[in-house]
Amino acid sequence: MGQTWDAAIKDQLRRVDELMEESIASSQPELTEICRHILDSGGKRLRPGVCILAFLASGGEDPSKIIRTATAFELIHSATLLHDDINDDSELRRGQLTAHRRFTVPKAIIAGDFLFVQGFRLGGTLDEEVVNAIADACNAMAEGEFIQSDHERRSETSMEVYRRIIEGKTAKPIAAGARVGAYLAGADSPMIEAMGGYGLNIGLAFQIADDILDIEGDESRTGKVSGIDIYEGKPTLPIIMAMRDDDAGPRVQEIFALKHKSDADVAEALDLIRSTDVLELCREHAREFVHEAKEYLEGVPPSRFRDSLTALADYVLERKL
Amino acid sequence: MGQTWDAAIKDQLRRVDELMEESIASSQPELTEICRHILDSGGKRLRPGVCILAFLASGGEDPSKIIRTATAFELIHSATLLHDDINDDSELRRGQLTAHRRFTVPKAIIAGDFLFVQGFRLGGTLDEEVVNAIADACNAMAEGEFIQSDHERRSETSMEVYRRIIEGKTAKPIAAGARVGAYLAGADSPMIEAMGGYGLNIGLAFQIADDILDIEGDESRTGKVSGIDIYEGKPTLPIIMAMRDDDAGPRVQEIFALKHKSDADVAEALDLIRSTDVLELCREHAREFVHEAKEYLEGVPPSRFRDSLTALADYVLERKL
Repeated sequence: MGQTWDAAIKDQLRRVDELMEESIASSQPELTEICRHILDSGGKRLRPGVCILAFLASGGEDPSKIIRTATAFELIHSATLLHDDINDDSELRRGQLTAHRRFTVPKAIIAGDFLFVQGFRLGGTLDEEVVNAIADACNAMAEGEFIQSDHERRSETSMEVYRRIIEGKTAKPIAAGARVGAYLAGADSPMIEAMGGYGLNIGLAFQIADDILDIEGDESRTGKVSGIDIYEGKPTLPIIMAMRDDDAGPRVQEIFALKHKSDADVAEALDLIRSTDVLELCREHAREFVHEAKEYLEGVPPSRFRDSLTALADYVLERKL
Repeated sequence: MGQTWDAAIKDQLRRVDELMEESIASSQPELTEICRHILDSGGKRLRPGVCILAFLASGGEDPSKIIRTATAFELIHSATLLHDDINDDSELRRGQLTAHRRFTVPKAIIAGDFLFVQGFRLGGTLDEEVVNAIADACNAMAEGEFIQSDHERRSETSMEVYRRIIEGKTAKPIAAGARVGAYLAGADSPMIEAMGGYGLNIGLAFQIADDILDIEGDESRTGKVSGIDIYEGKPTLPIIMAMRDDDAGPRVQEIFALKHKSDADVAEALDLIRSTDVLELCREHAREFVHEAKEYLEGVPPSRFRDSLTALADYVLERKL
């Protein structure tokens, strides 16, 4: 305890990075360059981390068995980041110009496809259960993105729809990684379910934390402009809750539903949301999911890897980037 | 002989269609609709056809073993069509509005990703050889598209570069399907190589036939506007050869290199290319590849499936759509 969540698996995460680097080799140097661009902006390797820790905490002994799968999840996640940035026409990711802005949309689309394929190449050479779990996670992401796209600028979007969106695009994929980790460790089905429940709940907390950051974020630390979700009309938890606020609600709804928003509109909505207690309520929601995630860990035998999973759950709430 | 190329495998191709329909099921009806939109415009099922015929002609007995793989190739091919249409911003495919124009770019990108994943789900539950063959084919496509993108509007593009582009984006994927068909039939490596050589050569012929159609195409029959390759600055065989023509060359080069082309520019380039003997020379090239494809079939034992592969090779030259 007291250690960072990834301290116990530094070696394995380094091997994930090495395997990713191998996986993006291509006869086209620029294709490799685009892939490296997105992998380098990919953050803390949370997804492979969950997968590896779930494997080790479930009694998995030979970590080399989990590296390929963990890497597959991260490659596929990176593929979706490339395509999401195109779909949102985002300008920055972690303070860097996004791939499609730097290398053109066609090349970023193709590079995303390439990363998907390399992910499946790694994950697909395992057994059918694993392939199906990865494919299910991908489908959940596609479906989550679809629902989100259908609710853009729709101020009446419900909490239940929000839940379906973030389950699909974030929580189910992380849960899949945790389940596959336990499965490959040879765990029994209660353990696999426990890991799946843990993964789902930290995924939900993670996405809410992300949505909070877009409202309160310090741009110099998040590496992207604040208020993007408002600007793009994405119904996130703080935005949905603020739109139901007696005072701020009507005007936030009005701005949220605008097809074309000025910077002043977005700034006004940000100020309005920040003037409510919505961000604190959202943090409370995220804390509840983290609490639930930790409850799932109670069925897992004590080990330093279980401690890391606990630390990871707390990290999800603290992270600023 | 004398039969259409697909007469001997009508049942199997129907099963491919059924399995594709199952594969595009989703909780999001519009996601399924976009996938169906592209599958319905997908043409003659040449890719699964080659895969199934290679399996049967190599002595494969139980066709159910090849259906999943053949379907995987077609799903992945369809995914690339969705993304290619976005990258080229094509308006029409087979006379229908393209998916991104009808359903938005983000939804077409996600639907393409979904088809990739469903393809790998089908293909990835077989053995490692098959997964790697499918992934290699995908990488070849990505690399071919990359080279093409780097040579847009470049009038000095060589025949060798053209060959690398069409090998990557068309010929190697078809060759992979043929090789996998033979492999799953339990064929020995000379037979697998023969099928690969056959597939590569009909793929090359197929792409040249496609490139010819863009120049001479009757729009009411091809279902798309002619001259798109000129408009987009894509270096195809007829365009490259016409740019080397003593009379037409300089002006075709000039138009090809223009960033913004009017309809009159494209019409002028089309007329110029048609005034040369380039299309006949291109047909000669395609015929040579078909001839070479048939030579590879000489090592394959006679059967009605080998006859179908011969008929398919001829069909590639005749096809008008």
